[in-house]
Amino acid sequence: MKLTILGCYSATPRALTNTTSQVLEINNHMFLIDCGEGTQIHLRKHKIKFNRIKHVFISHLHGDHFFGLVGLISTFRLLTREADLHIYGPEGIKEIVTLQMKLADSWTNYNLIFHELKSHNSELIFEDESVEVYTIPLDHRIYTNGFLFKEKEGERKLDINAVEDAHINLAYFRKLKQGFDVLNEDGDLVKNNTVTMPGAKPKSYAFCSDTTYKEDIVPIIDKVDVLYHESTFLEKHANLAPKTKHSTAKEAARIAKKANAGVLLLGHYSTRYDGLNAFKEEAKEIFDNVELCEDGKVFEF
Amino acid sequence: MKLTILGCYSATPRALTNTTSQVLEINNHMFLIDCGEGTQIHLRKHKIKFNRIKHVFISHLHGDHFFGLVGLISTFRLLTREADLHIYGPEGIKEIVTLQMKLADSWTNYNLIFHELKSHNSELIFEDESVEVYTIPLDHRIYTNGFLFKEKEGERKLDINAVEDAHINLAYFRKLKQGFDVLNEDGDLVKNNTVTMPGAKPKSYAFCSDTTYKEDIVPIIDKVDVLYHESTFLEKHANLAPKTKHSTAKEAARIAKKANAGVLLLGHYSTRYDGLNAFKEEAKEIFDNVELCEDGKVFEF
Repeated sequence: MKLTILGCYSATPRALTNTTSQVLEINNHMFLIDCGEGTQIHLRKHKIKFNRIKHVFISHLHGDHFFGLVGLISTFRLLTREADLHIYGPEGIKEIVTLQMKLADSWTNYNLIFHELKSHNSELIFEDESVEVYTIPLDHRIYTNGFLFKEKEGERKLDINAVEDAHINLAYFRKLKQGFDVLNEDGDLVKNNTVTMPGAKPKSYAFCSDTTYKEDIVPIIDKVDVLYHESTFLEKHANLAPKTKHSTAKEAARIAKKANAGVLLLGHYSTRYDGLNAFKEEAKEIFDNVELCEDGKVFEF
Repeated sequence: MKLTILGCYSATPRALTNTTSQVLEINNHMFLIDCGEGTQIHLRKHKIKFNRIKHVFISHLHGDHFFGLVGLISTFRLLTREADLHIYGPEGIKEIVTLQMKLADSWTNYNLIFHELKSHNSELIFEDESVEVYTIPLDHRIYTNGFLFKEKEGERKLDINAVEDAHINLAYFRKLKQGFDVLNEDGDLVKNNTVTMPGAKPKSYAFCSDTTYKEDIVPIIDKVDVLYHESTFLEKHANLAPKTKHSTAKEAARIAKKANAGVLLLGHYSTRYDGLNAFKEEAKEIFDNVELCEDGKVFEF
């Protein structure tokens, strides 16, 4: 699981700070999460192949999370993309994009498939053989979802010595990896767990931005390996957090602790602060394993 | 007259090339012309004060000319702008901006005044005591205007010796500068042109992008001091120009020559080419005074 932070600041893009966008590489998927203005340029800088992005998840319709989307869609068209592109985001997102395409007389030559979200409960919005994606209903000034990305239980690993000892034919290896009991060459049934071991532990990533402190999300993200939780403010501006429906670094840490997260990533910093260290320090008072997102940083888990 | 090129490439923003946007400083106005994605970031890099921009002119609704607009409007709001902002652009531009503001529940705290354009004839769209702005109807794949910015005839300069010799009271100096004849202290009428000289020659700037070669614009931009004309292609791709409704460098030069322009600025280059020198060389075969726009370049005229 590899997470590339294209941008992690709030409000407005500046010369040296980008607004929210991330690329999550998980089981051969490249998921784009949020798409602030200039995201396509940051994707290019990171040499992320546009064609590998097939799913875009937009948390909410504030500009710092989606003003780069229509440009990205338009660039994909100019580059003669053919692969389908799925957009998951709040109701209205389709109208915004299609209105601009209509007025530009520029329809995409690839399929653009919108999955508009309006539920206030967590729901499964994407699933294939290896990954599931759920919404995490957040509490912000407008309708907002976080997203939970979960690897599925992977294939079991063969215990090659045990498999040979049990006289199992090569033809059954695939079934064994999938967890089935199989017949051996002597016609006896071999219990799967006597010749296989569990595969790699499936990993999970939760993206929670933007939101005020909301304990309701804890059961949804319980034991998540990596939690990105917005931390717009430091303690000295804690009074602004509920007013603007954002969180402090400490609140992010409190959620991480309650959810028994593996590691907490902080981001969505207000640009009023000079450095980021205080975010980490304040969060670490509550939760130990804290990392700071920074534009361009790559995490591998 | 000062022109700052924020971006001058076509199609899509890239790591090292920006899409179209320019700032024209003329008689204390800061006019923003087109607004590709990322324009607000480039404005910040050039330390152009956001509050000085009160008028934005959008040529057409292709993304590389206006995808930065809604972000700019939104940033102005976050920075608690109070000054009115006038947007001049094709019909539909208001709907695009207001839909996004509605869905973000983010109305501007300043007046946002749209001037939607739909005429296919050149029209006066802005005028004050010192400047006039006219549309230049262009021929592109969708409805497109260029813009002609013209200083008005400035005040006349006093010939101080002649004024003293003519016994004109200080109280009449303002009238003299405005071109009126006045009475002197002896009660005689003094002809204005005997005691004043013409003021500085008014300057003009024409922005023509995007367009196919279109001679009809020549009378509108006749004797313009500075002509920016798009030159997407070199001669070796001349066949693409009419097909995509763009121009070659030579065609831009032909328009400059026919219009007796003072200087031709080239821009809106296709990113398929390695360098820009060939654009200048090809244009100079037809018109002598050619300059290349480059991102970040500042021209003073």
